[in-house]
Amino acid sequence: MTASTPDTSDRSTVISIDAMGGERGLSAVIGGMEKSARKNPDIRFILHGPEPHLAPLLQRQPALRERTEVRHVEKTVSMEDKPSRVLRRGKGTSMWNALESVAKGEAAVAVSCGNTGALMALSMLALRKAPGVDRPAIAVMWPSRNPSGYNVVLDVGADIRADARDLLNYAIMGAAYVRNGLQLKRPRVGLLNVGTEEHKGRPELHEAAQLIEAAAPGSDFEYVGYVEGSDIGGEGVDLIVTDGFTGNVALKTAEGTAMQVRDLLKEAFRFTPLSRIGALFALTSLRRLSKRIDPRRVNGGVFLGLNGTVVKSHGSADATGLSAAIKLAFILAQNGFAEKLARRVASGAGPAQTDTKRKEAEAS
Amino acid sequence: MTASTPDTSDRSTVISIDAMGGERGLSAVIGGMEKSARKNPDIRFILHGPEPHLAPLLQRQPALRERTEVRHVEKTVSMEDKPSRVLRRGKGTSMWNALESVAKGEAAVAVSCGNTGALMALSMLALRKAPGVDRPAIAVMWPSRNPSGYNVVLDVGADIRADARDLLNYAIMGAAYVRNGLQLKRPRVGLLNVGTEEHKGRPELHEAAQLIEAAAPGSDFEYVGYVEGSDIGGEGVDLIVTDGFTGNVALKTAEGTAMQVRDLLKEAFRFTPLSRIGALFALTSLRRLSKRIDPRRVNGGVFLGLNGTVVKSHGSADATGLSAAIKLAFILAQNGFAEKLARRVASGAGPAQTDTKRKEAEAS
Repeated sequence: MTASTPDTSDRSTVISIDAMGGERGLSAVIGGMEKSARKNPDIRFILHGPEPHLAPLLQRQPALRERTEVRHVEKTVSMEDKPSRVLRRGKGTSMWNALESVAKGEAAVAVSCGNTGALMALSMLALRKAPGVDRPAIAVMWPSRNPSGYNVVLDVGADIRADARDLLNYAIMGAAYVRNGLQLKRPRVGLLNVGTEEHKGRPELHEAAQLIEAAAPGSDFEYVGYVEGSDIGGEGVDLIVTDGFTGNVALKTAEGTAMQVRDLLKEAFRFTPLSRIGALFALTSLRRLSKRIDPRRVNGGVFLGLNGTVVKSHGSADATGLSAAIKLAFILAQNGFAEKLARRVASGAGPAQTDTKRKEAEAS
Repeated sequence: MTASTPDTSDRSTVISIDAMGGERGLSAVIGGMEKSARKNPDIRFILHGPEPHLAPLLQRQPALRERTEVRHVEKTVSMEDKPSRVLRRGKGTSMWNALESVAKGEAAVAVSCGNTGALMALSMLALRKAPGVDRPAIAVMWPSRNPSGYNVVLDVGADIRADARDLLNYAIMGAAYVRNGLQLKRPRVGLLNVGTEEHKGRPELHEAAQLIEAAAPGSDFEYVGYVEGSDIGGEGVDLIVTDGFTGNVALKTAEGTAMQVRDLLKEAFRFTPLSRIGALFALTSLRRLSKRIDPRRVNGGVFLGLNGTVVKSHGSADATGLSAAIKLAFILAQNGFAEKLARRVASGAGPAQTDTKRKEAEAS
């Protein structure tokens, strides 16, 4: 070991980090950890990765090194590995070991930049699904017009299917996440659809709407009904619930659109000498804008519905992006989020399930 | 009648217009027609709506009045009418009559700002589905990084379901639209999914991928495989095929995101006196940008898969927006688009259908 074992007897929070799988290599991971450690004295790390490569990088960051325990591991999950292969051969990789630290209770949250499908597959194996959850989900912060600056959207790609009961669980889990991640007491929950009228959309959405509406009073959220794609970043809702196929397409479409507009803006400013001068004058304001729409600042998809919290950082995240993911992990760890979530699901899904069963009994 | 009957013996193209259903009223419709007529000497109109209200508006536009035949009708379809109600009671409305002009061959294309669901329901009744088409689709132009500035996406909301065969038809119909609307001889077609790897996504997408790939050589398009939400406006593809639920969410998400970034930009420029000066200098470039991302400029969803072409203009379209929709209608009419499309579907879906039936026979 190149670093001392973190002292967990104090009030510090331990984050377990998978050093591998990011497109920008180990230095981006160490850079992100260093940024986080500098801002936050209460954070400690268990870092899973190749010790001979990590040691020299940590050597240059004595403050970080002091608060990091390196756990040597050679095997890694690559960006190309299919989840099925990872399930057979993923044990003993840096990703697996990072998750195991959470399963064993050594760390509060795991953070990885690796392959999303593989991370979800291994998370389900290492942490197991929480009682009452059939399909875990990935939730992301979505830049919005609300005072906090963000809404939460889930599922953005854990599972391509979701039935009405899954969507109800997403609402309950997502609302818990909004309460903890955005500090909103009573989140407004919307169900993503192709129109706001009651008759619109697929049958499972109509059923989900009824379940979510019935669960709202007991689960401390408000159900606002169907919302459309244009409402996701709007101020009428805090949490948007959808299946992982639709959520993934929406997320990537928004990222692509923001990037396109940003590039058009750059082009517009290069177009004439006058506009170049204009850009100089407006520089600070433009920097503020690009900070607002910078996807790195909202880096971190959170896996919900497991016995433990996992934060998936973007594969191309740099030090700033990784630091944002670590900050999110820290906030959730501090709030005892995983435990609160499990209680919510248990109490929220319970009565509704009974209700459905009763209806089924009546119908049969 | 307040105007002369259009002389269709010359080379002019007649567009049938539903005057009702737009949120901005009759003057926006007349304004859009006037813009189009001014730019295009070969265009004539049949205008369906309340003659007592239309006549005074046309009185002020003598050049337009000369080329417009008003067909009086009182009944209208409202934005709130459900498609089921419209099917029972929609006949004899301005929307219905506008479609009937195309069905009778009096006009080449119909344009309406009305309720999308109602317009599609009435279009299917008035024009009937084209042979070989089970589900018609709505295609839109999507701002892109390609040289033409646009890609085409379908279905954006005609039907919330689509099986593999529907997706194949969307590819064939969409490719015909790209050839006519964007003048690209051999469009590159992508299938929207949550990842580009072969194993990703729903089973019907895997089947659709095989059908589309097999149909590509005989249908004059290139199949580029799965694409993701972030690729929709990219330069690797000209046509994006998806079901109407996903397409509708993607379209509205992109519109919402573009609007959000535009508002942030405005805010950024108002933030400091210096940035306000910058904005003055950059004014022309910013106007160019806002023209590029102005949804009114790409106004017009095209209904594909019917015996006749229908252009759905945005409900909130102003004169500029309506003029863009009319321009699109004119281009498609000039190219004999509806006939070409029908031939494509007949020849493209034929062999593939035989192929599927053979497979089913083998499997059974």
